Amino acid sequence: MSTQKQSKVRLGIIGVGNMGSGHIANILAGRCPEIEVTAVADINPARLDYARSKIPEVAVFNTAEEMLDSGLIDAAIVAVPHYFHPKYVLECFKRGIHVMSEKPAGVYTKQVREMNEAAKSAGVVFGMMFNQRTDCLYRKMRELVQSGKYGNIRRTSWIITNWYRPQAYYDSGAWRATWSGEGGGVLLNQAPHNVDLWTWLAGMPLAVRAGCSEGKYHRIGVEDEATIYAEFPGGATGVFITSTGEAPGTNRLELVFDRGRLLLENGRLNVLRLGVSEREFCFTSKAGYALPDITEENIVLRPERDGHSLILEDFARTILSGTPLLSPGRDGVNELSISNAAYLSSWTGRRVELPLSPASMAEFHKLLTAKRSAEQSGAAGTRGEAANTSDIGGSEYNARWTTRW
Amino acid sequence: MSTQKQSKVRLGIIGVGNMGSGHIANILAGRCPEIEVTAVADINPARLDYARSKIPEVAVFNTAEEMLDSGLIDAAIVAVPHYFHPKYVLECFKRGIHVMSEKPAGVYTKQVREMNEAAKSAGVVFGMMFNQRTDCLYRKMRELVQSGKYGNIRRTSWIITNWYRPQAYYDSGAWRATWSGEGGGVLLNQAPHNVDLWTWLAGMPLAVRAGCSEGKYHRIGVEDEATIYAEFPGGATGVFITSTGEAPGTNRLELVFDRGRLLLENGRLNVLRLGVSEREFCFTSKAGYALPDITEENIVLRPERDGHSLILEDFARTILSGTPLLSPGRDGVNELSISNAAYLSSWTGRRVELPLSPASMAEFHKLLTAKRSAEQSGAAGTRGEAANTSDIGGSEYNARWTTRW
Repeated sequence: MSTQKQSKVRLGIIGVGNMGSGHIANILAGRCPEIEVTAVADINPARLDYARSKIPEVAVFNTAEEMLDSGLIDAAIVAVPHYFHPKYVLECFKRGIHVMSEKPAGVYTKQVREMNEAAKSAGVVFGMMFNQRTDCLYRKMRELVQSGKYGNIRRTSWIITNWYRPQAYYDSGAWRATWSGEGGGVLLNQAPHNVDLWTWLAGMPLAVRAGCSEGKYHRIGVEDEATIYAEFPGGATGVFITSTGEAPGTNRLELVFDRGRLLLENGRLNVLRLGVSEREFCFTSKAGYALPDITEENIVLRPERDGHSLILEDFARTILSGTPLLSPGRDGVNELSISNAAYLSSWTGRRVELPLSPASMAEFHKLLTAKRSAEQSGAAGTRGEAANTSDIGGSEYNARWTTRW
Repeated sequence: MSTQKQSKVRLGIIGVGNMGSGHIANILAGRCPEIEVTAVADINPARLDYARSKIPEVAVFNTAEEMLDSGLIDAAIVAVPHYFHPKYVLECFKRGIHVMSEKPAGVYTKQVREMNEAAKSAGVVFGMMFNQRTDCLYRKMRELVQSGKYGNIRRTSWIITNWYRPQAYYDSGAWRATWSGEGGGVLLNQAPHNVDLWTWLAGMPLAVRAGCSEGKYHRIGVEDEATIYAEFPGGATGVFITSTGEAPGTNRLELVFDRGRLLLENGRLNVLRLGVSEREFCFTSKAGYALPDITEENIVLRPERDGHSLILEDFARTILSGTPLLSPGRDGVNELSISNAAYLSSWTGRRVELPLSPASMAEFHKLLTAKRSAEQSGAAGTRGEAANTSDIGGSEYNARWTTRW
């Protein structure tokens, strides 16, 4: 890593699949002027040819390690299947290379804690590709939560079921939607964005109860629908529902406060504000069936640009100027803790406390290992190997991971 | 009971509190021409005076038994606190008197099964006051579910948190919101209407997981917020969220089907219909990120009149002409099974199967008894006795129990 004052971050991409090629398209379109793609690595020669065809001057490597040792990059995007995120992120940190990791950061929370410790020791920047954090409506919502003007959160509910995927999506890669390849389903692949935003807005829960439906809509062994009930500090509660089986699906996020309600749906933030805190009204109203005064406002904000490029730009700015990251690696633990706990709760039928106790973590690993074994022996109905059809353009890629209302 | 062909049902009212006086107001307003109130019974002399002042010709009794033995009534409304519903309903059936019971039918499912058996043996009509079943939007929704044109239900979600009650409501009767007086909170008192409608629309679940927050918003020992996750036959799932602590609260019911989605909110039924079943599309689409064709329609229907009077009219018609009941007593078991199971799940942190096994029922009774004992010894923070302020007019009573959007 160069210690001189730089004007551009030299970026390497580990894995030129769906996400990696999307990032290349974004950078080539001029959306991240502080980033230059100088190298790519992929074990699939066809993906390297694809990269060469897009960026003739790029250096290509058959292994990530060769690229990391080449001296050609200051930072890397890790865009390989989930199970390999911790391995390559740690390889980068060993060499003092900054990392932007695709979500989820790993499959187990323990790994992600180690990754954060390694980043800290190496003194490098570790960011998570939670691109939806850049959406102006979520940012507005967070601003209102943090302002304190609505008081404490009492209840949250997010129905985020518009991650629809037909079977063809799952058949596009044999690693997809398997316990061995991804370590989970919709909670690990599509909804981490939303679980992250949920904790970004409402904080971390103390316990969850969950029901995950495995193979409800598709020929897959992992869950394609999940429902989580969470208990937060101070008595607040929350429900999170996600699915890849609903067409067109719903995206509706409701936060209830002492002094009002924020409701995000159809690209609109609806704000109900109480004239007096419900807490005060509850204990002073003489009438048994009264309501406090309520005012209503609607906020419509249109996204300025694609969230992935905003996250990359923020990442580059942090590397170059030391500004705080919008989506730091330490937050990768939060959404993963929730999905780990949700699986454990669903499999055992029991309420699970957070942070996961060593006993809960051991039970989770044991049950996940059993799922993987059953899958590998064919008992869980795995799918055959299929071609990885990841030769996609930038616009489709953007649409795929950007908030849909 | 008269065996002659009658033109009017002679009705007695057991309990002239909030609900009983509301029914009197409705009938006096001419909304149930096939019903005549001929007698009332209440242990509180002030309530009998109230009845006399409204209906000078009515016969008044200090005990229900005297009224039931008087020969003055063919049918009775049971409108006493929940714990007494089974007792008085059974007293009626012993004497061949038809019954319309306020909800919930009882506090334990076992009681309600016995009540239904007794009604059958006596050959009398047993109806439940699920007045919201008469709402034209819920009726339209049921018609669309039953039509089969949307295929099977895959997921349901109901956020019904607009049952707001300030503390003054709970303080209006010492029996309110206690384990001893009502046997539960929002699930037993306010939301039975919605739990009933949920099962009326989506059927009975096979299992539930639930979290009930006791005294979250009020100085009460029972739950004022509840969240239920349900598993239905065929893999469908559902979430039900209710609360008396949110001002103004939400009423949003979503049913997702193979061929579309029905969404009820703000007095409007939004219908999304797919051109092809999602099941077919899922396995025939060649594209990994496609959606089937969708058409949208909005249905707005305004209620013609108050639901309580429609239920009473339907009850009278069944007694006089034998037409099927819109809201039969046998359905009282459904919502009660769900609330019993939800309490058990919340208390134990475990998934609970339905119908409740004898072991689950025994565990539920044991835990409920412990709650009652703790309450009676003052450990659970019971409130002091307060005046029952139930001298209310018909319009407030109607508004209180009618669907709010």
